[in-house]
Amino acid sequence: MNTPVPIAGESVERCDAARNRQRLLDAAALLVAERGPDAVTMDAVAARAGVGKGTVFRRFGSRAGLMAALLDHSESAFQYACMYGPPPLGPDAEPIARLIAFGRARIELVEVQGELLRAAESSVETRHGNAPRQVSLIHLEMLLRTIGMGARSRLLAHSLLAALDPGLILYQWHELGYSLKELADNWADLTHRVVTGDSLPSTEYST
Amino acid sequence: MNTPVPIAGESVERCDAARNRQRLLDAAALLVAERGPDAVTMDAVAARAGVGKGTVFRRFGSRAGLMAALLDHSESAFQYACMYGPPPLGPDAEPIARLIAFGRARIELVEVQGELLRAAESSVETRHGNAPRQVSLIHLEMLLRTIGMGARSRLLAHSLLAALDPGLILYQWHELGYSLKELADNWADLTHRVVTGDSLPSTEYST
Repeated sequence: MNTPVPIAGESVERCDAARNRQRLLDAAALLVAERGPDAVTMDAVAARAGVGKGTVFRRFGSRAGLMAALLDHSESAFQYACMYGPPPLGPDAEPIARLIAFGRARIELVEVQGELLRAAESSVETRHGNAPRQVSLIHLEMLLRTIGMGARSRLLAHSLLAALDPGLILYQWHELGYSLKELADNWADLTHRVVTGDSLPSTEYST
Repeated sequence: MNTPVPIAGESVERCDAARNRQRLLDAAALLVAERGPDAVTMDAVAARAGVGKGTVFRRFGSRAGLMAALLDHSESAFQYACMYGPPPLGPDAEPIARLIAFGRARIELVEVQGELLRAAESSVETRHGNAPRQVSLIHLEMLLRTIGMGARSRLLAHSLLAALDPGLILYQWHELGYSLKELADNWADLTHRVVTGDSLPSTEYST
């Protein structure tokens, strides 16, 4: 999860800017992990990163801008891990192991930044069409196709991804008292059943 | 879907009130079906039911009250159909046929009242814990237990129900262009796979 997204072909100045940005995002991510998203104020991030508050404002414009950047950053790191990282998330594992690892990792992400994810998806309009969700969908579909789910892969990917909805995970965790381990095991069981189960002949139960 | 919820042991006066209420709800439901939820105004419902606007206000208080009653009414009818109605939704069908019919019927409900359902679930706080969802959850869990999913039934029910989220169905239908038939077939395929698939040994893929 901490794999940095590689940066190539930039000038020294742009590298410095990228490093500063990274440092501020790391500070903000630590604050979220330790004390929740409400603890992420421009002041707290500046103090944590050892810079002036003005630097944080110049870089991100506002707290909302910082929060959006934080989510983008962590989604990029997650995508990178899925595409190029070590197994079981990355390409050197079996597709079914990657599928299971994907959900486990999304559930772990909720632990650290669930409120951020939920806030990003709180609008009914953006909840299903937002960019990270699209990337997750394509990744799941690709894995399901590799496993042999054929033309049904895309809609199955939609249905499986719905089970990882950050709002649902938070509800199951905080309101119903399930542990994240139980939720991750349920994801593993669900996906294992789906990929080992029989596809439904299209004529059956079609009333 | 049109099975009326039975009313027992009431005086003639209460029966009249129930009939009037039913008539107003039927008028409102027809308006939703024909012209969408925005068409449901107190005026339009009164005109459609052939009563004065004051009657509609006396009965439901406000447009929001009317919309809530409309959703309650249709959820009650749906619950009644699941518990006592004819197969494949009701108890005289095999559990797997009932499971598949349940999802197909929820997807059909979205066609008629998707915007209502989505509006009812638009608050992040009430999206997962609202009463109709709880009832659906219990019904799905009961079917999964009967099929033999054991202790995993409750969390599997959560995951499957997420695939029927009205917002997701509306997004797939309106934004992505899937037909409701395709979405219902996906539900049938998903649930068939889940109940015929192998459960995951708890030690596997547990990293």
